Amino acid sequence: MRKESPLLRWLRWIVAVAAVLLVGFVIGWFARPTSSHVQGDGTSSQYLRKFLDEMKASNIREHLRKFTRLPHLAGTKQNLVYAEQIREEWLSFGLDSVELVPYDVLLSYPNKSQPNYISIVDQLGNEVFNTSLAEPVPDGYEGVADIIPPYSAFSPKGQPEGELVYVNYGRTEDFVQLKREMGINVTGKIVIVRYGKIFRGNKVKNAMLAGAKGIIMFSDPADYSAVGVQPYPDGWNLPGGGAQRGNVLNLNGAGDPLTPGYPAKEYTYRSNLEDGVGLPKIPVHPIGYHDAMHLLKNMGGRLPPNNWKGALNVSYSIGPGFTDTFRTQKVRMNIHTNNQVTRIYNVIGRIRGAQEPDRYVILGGHRDAWVFGAIDPMSGAAVVHETVRSAGKLLSNGWRPRRTIIFASWDAEEFGLLGSTEWAEDNAKLLQERAVAYINADSAIEGMYTLRVDCTPSLHTLVYDLTKQIASPEEGEEGVSLYDSWHKRDNWTSDRDAPRISKLGSGSDFEAYFIRLGIAAGRARYTKDRKTERYSSYPVYHSVYETFELVERFYDPTFRRLQAVAQVRGGLIFRLADSQLLPLDANEYAGSLRRYVLSIAERAEKHPEEMKMYRVTFDALFSAEENFTIAARDFHVRLQNLNRVRMVNDQLMYLERAFIDPLGLPGRPFYRHLIFAPSSHNKYAGESFPGIYDALFDIESSANQQQAWQEVKRQISIAAFTVHAAAMTLTQPGETKTTVHARILTHL
Amino acid sequence: MRKESPLLRWLRWIVAVAAVLLVGFVIGWFARPTSSHVQGDGTSSQYLRKFLDEMKASNIREHLRKFTRLPHLAGTKQNLVYAEQIREEWLSFGLDSVELVPYDVLLSYPNKSQPNYISIVDQLGNEVFNTSLAEPVPDGYEGVADIIPPYSAFSPKGQPEGELVYVNYGRTEDFVQLKREMGINVTGKIVIVRYGKIFRGNKVKNAMLAGAKGIIMFSDPADYSAVGVQPYPDGWNLPGGGAQRGNVLNLNGAGDPLTPGYPAKEYTYRSNLEDGVGLPKIPVHPIGYHDAMHLLKNMGGRLPPNNWKGALNVSYSIGPGFTDTFRTQKVRMNIHTNNQVTRIYNVIGRIRGAQEPDRYVILGGHRDAWVFGAIDPMSGAAVVHETVRSAGKLLSNGWRPRRTIIFASWDAEEFGLLGSTEWAEDNAKLLQERAVAYINADSAIEGMYTLRVDCTPSLHTLVYDLTKQIASPEEGEEGVSLYDSWHKRDNWTSDRDAPRISKLGSGSDFEAYFIRLGIAAGRARYTKDRKTERYSSYPVYHSVYETFELVERFYDPTFRRLQAVAQVRGGLIFRLADSQLLPLDANEYAGSLRRYVLSIAERAEKHPEEMKMYRVTFDALFSAEENFTIAARDFHVRLQNLNRVRMVNDQLMYLERAFIDPLGLPGRPFYRHLIFAPSSHNKYAGESFPGIYDALFDIESSANQQQAWQEVKRQISIAAFTVHAAAMTLTQPGETKTTVHARILTHL
Repeated sequence: MRKESPLLRWLRWIVAVAAVLLVGFVIGWFARPTSSHVQGDGTSSQYLRKFLDEMKASNIREHLRKFTRLPHLAGTKQNLVYAEQIREEWLSFGLDSVELVPYDVLLSYPNKSQPNYISIVDQLGNEVFNTSLAEPVPDGYEGVADIIPPYSAFSPKGQPEGELVYVNYGRTEDFVQLKREMGINVTGKIVIVRYGKIFRGNKVKNAMLAGAKGIIMFSDPADYSAVGVQPYPDGWNLPGGGAQRGNVLNLNGAGDPLTPGYPAKEYTYRSNLEDGVGLPKIPVHPIGYHDAMHLLKNMGGRLPPNNWKGALNVSYSIGPGFTDTFRTQKVRMNIHTNNQVTRIYNVIGRIRGAQEPDRYVILGGHRDAWVFGAIDPMSGAAVVHETVRSAGKLLSNGWRPRRTIIFASWDAEEFGLLGSTEWAEDNAKLLQERAVAYINADSAIEGMYTLRVDCTPSLHTLVYDLTKQIASPEEGEEGVSLYDSWHKRDNWTSDRDAPRISKLGSGSDFEAYFIRLGIAAGRARYTKDRKTERYSSYPVYHSVYETFELVERFYDPTFRRLQAVAQVRGGLIFRLADSQLLPLDANEYAGSLRRYVLSIAERAEKHPEEMKMYRVTFDALFSAEENFTIAARDFHVRLQNLNRVRMVNDQLMYLERAFIDPLGLPGRPFYRHLIFAPSSHNKYAGESFPGIYDALFDIESSANQQQAWQEVKRQISIAAFTVHAAAMTLTQPGETKTTVHARILTHL
Repeated sequence: MRKESPLLRWLRWIVAVAAVLLVGFVIGWFARPTSSHVQGDGTSSQYLRKFLDEMKASNIREHLRKFTRLPHLAGTKQNLVYAEQIREEWLSFGLDSVELVPYDVLLSYPNKSQPNYISIVDQLGNEVFNTSLAEPVPDGYEGVADIIPPYSAFSPKGQPEGELVYVNYGRTEDFVQLKREMGINVTGKIVIVRYGKIFRGNKVKNAMLAGAKGIIMFSDPADYSAVGVQPYPDGWNLPGGGAQRGNVLNLNGAGDPLTPGYPAKEYTYRSNLEDGVGLPKIPVHPIGYHDAMHLLKNMGGRLPPNNWKGALNVSYSIGPGFTDTFRTQKVRMNIHTNNQVTRIYNVIGRIRGAQEPDRYVILGGHRDAWVFGAIDPMSGAAVVHETVRSAGKLLSNGWRPRRTIIFASWDAEEFGLLGSTEWAEDNAKLLQERAVAYINADSAIEGMYTLRVDCTPSLHTLVYDLTKQIASPEEGEEGVSLYDSWHKRDNWTSDRDAPRISKLGSGSDFEAYFIRLGIAAGRARYTKDRKTERYSSYPVYHSVYETFELVERFYDPTFRRLQAVAQVRGGLIFRLADSQLLPLDANEYAGSLRRYVLSIAERAEKHPEEMKMYRVTFDALFSAEENFTIAARDFHVRLQNLNRVRMVNDQLMYLERAFIDPLGLPGRPFYRHLIFAPSSHNKYAGESFPGIYDALFDIESSANQQQAWQEVKRQISIAAFTVHAAAMTLTQPGETKTTVHARILTHL
């Protein structure tokens, strides 16, 4: 062997060491994660499984039991006690922080010394019949104090007396039919309408506009009894002595009536009561069907059309007033309800995000109940409680979500979504810039049939993905996924073979987040069979009979349905908070927009002559929707090759915001979402393109057709602009050539 | 030496190699840049120097010469030709893209076959005097076509005839004084007012509200001549035959009067002219002081207070009407101006950002001019042109900014900021979420004394930093920085030893970006000596005498002042687009807010008894402002130890947005900035806390003091909420404990 020179040997050493160093360097360089590449969400998926499996039916049962022992109306001591208890328990579950956030809002309570009721009075003014002052209390709750009797919150005080007129459900079309076809004027009368079909506040507004001086609402068995089911406690139907409480405001998203647009804090300026938003001007009162019988049985006047008849053994005569025999009798309402500014408390819990603490995913539902609220809202609150517990468990096992999660127990939802709206107003700037999504958690069950999901289209794909990972809670469906169980029971339509998902309307706490601020939102619950069960809501809704036993005996004896809902709500939050790439789907939005445009255009085309005369065209809107579809497709193609996650996540997050118009819908400044908002005629019904929808609705009744059609055109133009602008938010930021252009439309 | 075992030897080898590998790994790990640490902006600073040095006075001269040869009014062929020329040149300078973006907006032109003028008529209706139909054309421009004569854009047509009343500057306080102290009612009269002090549109609105049937505005030498200066062309004063053109709208930020809130595209719905925003209802016309002499000289009625007297050799009698000798004579206005929807063109150029293409920094200024526009706006446009050229040069040398830069040449600014507002409306969603700052580039010079900067407080620090790196353009100040030169000439106040920076008002294209959308904004130009030069604006403002020669002979013979302005505007854009950490200073905002709160509270405290009677307090606002100060301080402390640049940059970017209220100011839905907006009484004057300011202003004239003070309280509450909410945006996102809390204020 030839001896190496020392130099050569040193060189070989140096090269070898350098090579090894280089290898190490290269490994180190590439081993280091940079924030600009999408990582697989593998670990996150494992945690999701643990998170879902951790939620137990038996715990949900316990939570529900615990929070339904006592009435806990908004603004009462007991509802504060529950708030404090929730705070303590959420802290013990392991949240990073939990705080009570108070607001001082306008609430409404019956006068304790002067009960509300309705009388039949004779010609001397003597009360010959009075409606009941309270519902019969269910077994086991006899000694409970502070059960508030049925009333219409925010009814003004008053004792109007007059003849009754029966107006079916009190819908816009019912009042139109009453006036146009039956020629009956309700000015100075008291109207009586049955509950159901639309939000009660819309009925009250219609009665006011028609000139009535009072309105009575009753629960007809036709609308509040399921076939073959016994009244509570032997079944889950509404007993004749039960009645539906509820607020009768027309807030259109304003929150606290005295502080519209701003949080009701200590220093906040409050309007006078006369200037309060949405307060009814005529007395309102709800009754059950036993009492309704007495008011209806002697009514005279013309007979009703068939579809105005309920299931009571009376004629449903329209009135005005009673039959000849009872002609001298009148009806008198005795309403002494008080409005009063009252402190309410939201509970806000947080888990700080590890990588993106400035991105928020919110799970919120209300806590206040009319009485025990075992369905509304505590079935939802129990589900949230278990979700928080499961998230806390994961935290203690080393998990921390990528983004911040906020859990909210809202107060005073029953008084007009007040707690959630005030908090949204208080934090609007932060939410606008940072909120990824809002998942609502009101009642988790309203039937025993299958899952019901209402959400923004960009959440469709996530909902489907997730429900495939959750087990069906139905007996005999072991090994079947929730998705398959749901799909089998409620297939969407002929044009889409997937479980039905509906639009969001209003009537729960997602409203300010979705319709005012434009945050992607959704809700999920267990529901009845929409094809066969025709009653409104669930029969005992807002009555004293919403007890723990109602749920345990009838709705969910194994608590597995609530568990499944917990897994859906919790899973949505988990994936939204923990996926590196936001699980929002712009293509689904595009597909939905297409359907909405077709449907609203079809509605207009029922008037082909006017469309021609006033030169109304949907071309601009179709063009904008095409642009949106292209932009969405290109956007998701670009995701394949992604190096700026935060940038595209921002685009996804802000997609929903792109539909917000700060000018709001006509006359509804706080309904700012141009794609989704409740109909002006029923708060519960979510309409797509609500501006165009309402303009078309008004065509029917408008005296000035020229002007009414101008408004249709204006709304089409605004919708087209908004959809086009939303498409632009999906194009590549900073690109020098946009791939999307508005088609030039010159025929306007 | 003991012989090692082979095993041990292998082990030693393995350990050694592993150690070296580890060292390499560690070096590699830490060598790799991650996007989450602040890097020094060293390279960026070097490029900034090159960028500033590249801008040449001689080029600016050439640009100005090139773009001022012909009149280029908005909506005319020539202004499109310049737009196309700018597009070609910006492309040749190296921008990534340049496009023309058209809108169809309402403009207003004199009728070519029926000129506008004002007559004195005798009792037979014969015109015994007519005002001139045009200004004498300056030397060298005799053959130029399409010089539009002086007119008030958007004046309705009409030929009102009546007695004249002289109302000084036509301010709110002038009309109040006329009515209350002099007892003169202008209903059915024609008012004549001098130009100056406030925006002309406010004068017209005041005249309308007072019941006048027409308004004439004239340029008085007291307001449009500098002492010891000759009229143009021998000096830069306004000649007697010159008059000020200008629009007389009261848009309050609405943009195109027919499409408020939405871009004026092909498919956009347009209101009827009667419903157009801000259009005056009475004829309006501007005249020079030669013509004004003839109208004023025979005026009768009472003599004016001293501060109503201008510099003409007349008595400035108030009227109504002429002296006895001329009693039978009346004044007749002959106005035939037409409104017409016209296509305008913005030029939009872009440099794509390298790291953050979805963050936009905008440099925008208008191109349209009343005639040649050598000062307004072409001194600004020439400066932008040179800035673009310099940026292109850097691009060709390998630089690319961190963020996207957008250069805009707006159209139809003179007709109500239309081009810039329509583009802001068109892109509102993108701008809201992505725009970092907007720098305005209107007239770059209006005097020969020193720098003038108006900007949002968060830009103060950047402006000071930058001007220290720019040379003074003044002769004899070689080696002196622009900062020092400026500081010496215009020290802020006794409480701050720094060059004065003022609030933004309105009257130029930053309006929609700053006051509607809440994007940090600023402007810079060269100005006169505010302490000694008391004339309004610059004397030949909006006249035919704004020629290239005016600038070259008088305002900036060396073009070094314009160069300095180019360096300021360009430098701001450069730093905002290229600094890793956004150069915005929340502490400066806090300091300014403090001063504004003190100042508005002082204004209210002139009414101590009413403050007590109506229980008005500023405590909530002071408390919110303290919170803001603490939050800003903590925020900047956290910047020392920074690992999420994008997150804190978002906080800085959105700080300005935090002051936006989607509900807008009372009656002004498009003025949404609660800290800065023009006074309702003068569009040019930027007021802080404009809601409170206006409410206090109305105290003076309100018949219902109770209600007026309630409005003051409401505005204080809204301002307090907004400042508090802005403070919250500066706290640490996702933190479990906020360091900022609203002080509990219970005395409301």
